[in-house]
Amino acid sequence: MKISILTLFPEMFDVFNHSIIGRAKDSNLVQIECLNIRDYTLSKHKKVDDYPYGGGAGMVMAPQPVIDSIKACKENNKGKVIFLGPRGKTFNHEMGLELAKEEELIFLCGHYEGLDERIYDYIDLEISLGDFILTGGEMAAIPVIDSILRLRKGVLGKEESFMDESFSNGLLEYPQYTRPFDFEGKKVPDVLISGHHENIRKWRRYESLKLTKKRRPDLYKNIELSKEDKKILKKFGE
Amino acid sequence: MKISILTLFPEMFDVFNHSIIGRAKDSNLVQIECLNIRDYTLSKHKKVDDYPYGGGAGMVMAPQPVIDSIKACKENNKGKVIFLGPRGKTFNHEMGLELAKEEELIFLCGHYEGLDERIYDYIDLEISLGDFILTGGEMAAIPVIDSILRLRKGVLGKEESFMDESFSNGLLEYPQYTRPFDFEGKKVPDVLISGHHENIRKWRRYESLKLTKKRRPDLYKNIELSKEDKKILKKFGE
Repeated sequence: MKISILTLFPEMFDVFNHSIIGRAKDSNLVQIECLNIRDYTLSKHKKVDDYPYGGGAGMVMAPQPVIDSIKACKENNKGKVIFLGPRGKTFNHEMGLELAKEEELIFLCGHYEGLDERIYDYIDLEISLGDFILTGGEMAAIPVIDSILRLRKGVLGKEESFMDESFSNGLLEYPQYTRPFDFEGKKVPDVLISGHHENIRKWRRYESLKLTKKRRPDLYKNIELSKEDKKILKKFGE
Repeated sequence: MKISILTLFPEMFDVFNHSIIGRAKDSNLVQIECLNIRDYTLSKHKKVDDYPYGGGAGMVMAPQPVIDSIKACKENNKGKVIFLGPRGKTFNHEMGLELAKEEELIFLCGHYEGLDERIYDYIDLEISLGDFILTGGEMAAIPVIDSILRLRKGVLGKEESFMDESFSNGLLEYPQYTRPFDFEGKKVPDVLISGHHENIRKWRRYESLKLTKKRRPDLYKNIELSKEDKKILKKFGE
């Protein structure tokens, strides 16, 4: 998968030189290239922003450098142009699955008070990270790109499976334990050392349901409880 | 404000050496320190994870190295211990405002399939970035820390005001325009060059309301429309 990033701070994406994504880059499963928007400005002072029409605090990213950087990028990347901005649909696991099917994607990172509205004509999709404000679009692009790449085949190693985890089945994950069995007097639940796979599966399912109900009632209400779920909930006393 | 980060990948936080947060660090408004969890393991192979009890794919972060790193960190940071994880409350602007009031905070970044459940006894608050999965907690810590620090006094310069922006008033921001007035035949709306401040204010309010209603009905339904809002909406034809 090829990811092109249009940004004023290409160095920030060195974050992808480490850990799982770093390994995926090294093995060429993933290509990440950054284009510096500032390289495309025709302004003699290398300006990329200007004052907003109508007044108000903050600067607005000017159409020329941004649009020219998008056009240049499209010569080598045929993917959708995604802008990280507050007006977009909030990113989630399903959106990640859709975008992970693409072979090429372009991410545009905004700064200052936002983009000149005319730039939106060159944007295919706006994604919001959540209901909060960041110093720049890079801070949203980092987790969004990470989450998409993580879903690509081969990116996760066998020790980093993505089957039993939060959100992929609409539930939060059950509690996990590892050695030692007794840590400062706190022990691992007996069922997990019973060797009884069926009981372990049921306990984990129950814990997932219980945690989701308690912490994320908004997710829980969308779960269709199976006959077995109802039996498990009853058995464990809810 | 002092931020301590417990992580297996301290280099990832070089992302904060640039742009607005980089400047805030340089002027000592913000201190960011990283502690490598691996430095605290007593395992002779420097392991920080182990297989899950009860089976299943993935590795689990072991209690000893993580808890010892938290204890060491607390000697120089009296802040809340925040874990970035999927079971937490979803981060938003209000949560950012609350956390920006603190003088010290500790962020714990998890990896692999998650933390041994016994580590949660040492965690004060769990925050989720959203309903998607990341390769590691660093990818969530980056935007959350950025969003909190951005709200601290002095971090934003005068050109990066945070008054008229998305979410701070519960609405998405109105469209912005900057020079040139005519870009490839696309012009700035007349009202913005009218010089009539009251009309500009009303147009912007209307555009904010309209955008929010269209893009984020979930936010729009929580807005209490003022008498003026109703008048503005009527005037502009909704």
